[in-house]
Amino acid sequence: VNEVKASIITIGDELLIGQTIDTNSAFIAQELNKIGIWVRRRLAIGDVEADILKSLKEETISSKIIIITGGLGPTGDDITKQVLAKYFNSGWTINEEALKNVVDIFNKLNRPLIERNLKQAEVPDNCTVLQNKRGTAPGMWFEKDEVIVISLPGVPNEMKGLMIDSVIPRLKKLRLPYVIHRTLLLAGKGESEVAELIKSYETSLPEHIKLAYLPAYGLLRLRLTGKSENGEFLEREINTLFQQLVQMVQPWIIAEDDITVPMALIRILNKHGKTIGTAESCTGGFIAQQITAIAGASNVYNGSIVSYSNSVKEDLLGVKEETLRSFGAVSEETVTEMLLGLISKLNTDYGIATSGIMGPGGGSDQKPVGTVWIAVGNRESIMTNKYQLRFNRERNIEQTAYLGMVSVFKFIKEVEGQ
Amino acid sequence: VNEVKASIITIGDELLIGQTIDTNSAFIAQELNKIGIWVRRRLAIGDVEADILKSLKEETISSKIIIITGGLGPTGDDITKQVLAKYFNSGWTINEEALKNVVDIFNKLNRPLIERNLKQAEVPDNCTVLQNKRGTAPGMWFEKDEVIVISLPGVPNEMKGLMIDSVIPRLKKLRLPYVIHRTLLLAGKGESEVAELIKSYETSLPEHIKLAYLPAYGLLRLRLTGKSENGEFLEREINTLFQQLVQMVQPWIIAEDDITVPMALIRILNKHGKTIGTAESCTGGFIAQQITAIAGASNVYNGSIVSYSNSVKEDLLGVKEETLRSFGAVSEETVTEMLLGLISKLNTDYGIATSGIMGPGGGSDQKPVGTVWIAVGNRESIMTNKYQLRFNRERNIEQTAYLGMVSVFKFIKEVEGQ
Repeated sequence: VNEVKASIITIGDELLIGQTIDTNSAFIAQELNKIGIWVRRRLAIGDVEADILKSLKEETISSKIIIITGGLGPTGDDITKQVLAKYFNSGWTINEEALKNVVDIFNKLNRPLIERNLKQAEVPDNCTVLQNKRGTAPGMWFEKDEVIVISLPGVPNEMKGLMIDSVIPRLKKLRLPYVIHRTLLLAGKGESEVAELIKSYETSLPEHIKLAYLPAYGLLRLRLTGKSENGEFLEREINTLFQQLVQMVQPWIIAEDDITVPMALIRILNKHGKTIGTAESCTGGFIAQQITAIAGASNVYNGSIVSYSNSVKEDLLGVKEETLRSFGAVSEETVTEMLLGLISKLNTDYGIATSGIMGPGGGSDQKPVGTVWIAVGNRESIMTNKYQLRFNRERNIEQTAYLGMVSVFKFIKEVEGQ
Repeated sequence: VNEVKASIITIGDELLIGQTIDTNSAFIAQELNKIGIWVRRRLAIGDVEADILKSLKEETISSKIIIITGGLGPTGDDITKQVLAKYFNSGWTINEEALKNVVDIFNKLNRPLIERNLKQAEVPDNCTVLQNKRGTAPGMWFEKDEVIVISLPGVPNEMKGLMIDSVIPRLKKLRLPYVIHRTLLLAGKGESEVAELIKSYETSLPEHIKLAYLPAYGLLRLRLTGKSENGEFLEREINTLFQQLVQMVQPWIIAEDDITVPMALIRILNKHGKTIGTAESCTGGFIAQQITAIAGASNVYNGSIVSYSNSVKEDLLGVKEETLRSFGAVSEETVTEMLLGLISKLNTDYGIATSGIMGPGGGSDQKPVGTVWIAVGNRESIMTNKYQLRFNRERNIEQTAYLGMVSVFKFIKEVEGQ
């Protein structure tokens, strides 16, 4: 397969000192992938002229498309535009549409417009300007020696807007091979056990189809990726292989496409016409946040009572003072009462209740850090589970939230038999 | 300054197709930075032998320390260990301690131990093994031609454990220059306005001290970074410069160190001995999650009522049905009643209430997507603010949450005059 290869270069000292996590690259890679462009390298470098020039030169050797983000701001540490002008031997010009955009944005914000901001509309004269409706730095598209270099702002929503509105439509006009991904989301089976189970299947896959194991939050994604010049044939081929895979891991499947656990949860609840609510002690609203991050969550999600203090557990969820005294906040008895209180107070069909010790403090010999109780259920039945996690606070919270959400699938399957 | 330069190479196809966001690099960069090692390049490449070998060769030209993560799993697509053995011309050996660790982990998990897993304890015979207590893949430390190459697993908590327990202590033994960061967190003033305000200060900074602007969530971080052989002198110098900066931007300062907004909020509440709770409609628990992510939040944070549906707003927060009917859920009247209900139900000193239309659906001519009402206050006084955001759903939620938290500082400063 004649692959079109791309590199992503993100520019900014903040990436190198670790103050900012690079979410842009993942987004760009996903979008390129969908149209059959393969990212072979991602690079993060500082706001340093020599490093930018060197990286540009290096990447053009093996990549036909180079997408650069960052370093287009109005302040002194941003030098990407200047370096690109140098690299492409450009003069300068004012782009009238970009200028109008800068003026409009400052009028709307009612902020003083200064020279520094007007400079944003000045661009190298041998690039195609990609208009940025969401900010003052325009995107730039250069072509030279059959290599395309695209410069985008580092602000995520501006970069995303430019990718979707300008970059992808323009790149689609190139002749590209087909790339098809098919993903399964599994719960309850480890990476190496699954690998053992599908060993002979994996080794018999044809050269142009790859299988990847992507573990996250105690779940496992299996992804088949195929590349070919012949899209129709590839689609049939990968569908057959995907169905074989589905057969082999059936009992652990949560979703047969590339969606997140909260998305899968919203989907199954919509399918059954049911609602859910959460009573969160140790997860502190993380489950609520994960579910409500998805548009349309309001069809199935009523809300959450984040009962961080014991008084909220008693006053709002109706957990008995005696239960807390006898068994403690982290106990089967407490999460059960939390769940019952939640379902009655929020009037939902299902509920998830969590209570645990996330660390680093708060542990004891009897209940060490990482002890978690989760209850899920409806008005009739309740399923409780105890876990002993061994991560840091952040990861313990995430893991508990995902265990809670996954338990709902288990409840629907095992207790309700649906 | 004689800088020790490092490169980070993350290996894994999942990074190149954008399925995984790389949080490891940021963590590694931060930890290296603290001990005066400067990351000059970060690189993400696929599980491809030629690419790994090429990147290793390239990076050793300008970096003395190379940290590699990923590709150490038990499955077929993981090849990092094999490629490193090839690169360093190694034979193979079983590391007894690593083997014992693999066996222990499988015993604890009560999972079947298969050949594939035992292989995890096999390592190149010319590396120093860094024992990994959190997983089955040991870390590896190679030295050749004065370059150090360190291989770590890609699972974040395993990588973090190895960095803190093994890598950093070993690297500290090298002779390193001093790096000092000082950070200010500002709210309510844009990047270019601040840049204009401190223009002459910025241009007069000495060569070895840099100023960076780091905007995030509508807030702005200003960071001074100094590097020197003389730590004591640098500390005095950067303290003086930092105090000058503080003077110039005093009215917008939320914190004078590198902490997050939720951390700053917990700190100011602790200082005043006050508690807070949240009533979240459009933020869906995001504020709760951000606050409870921080250890010790329970001193000041009681909990949240995530009132995603109107019935929860009425039943749990006591918002009047008439208020919802006359003014709608996204209105000054509703967030005011949400706040009052919250403070009384959760018995907190302060509260934050949010209601808005986060998109992509749900907007109208009168209340377009991005319309947000926020109320903050205590039993005596309430401050309400309306915002019109123009991002996507995810960003609108984050921005609203941060505006809500920042409003508490404003309330304490302006309404309570503290």
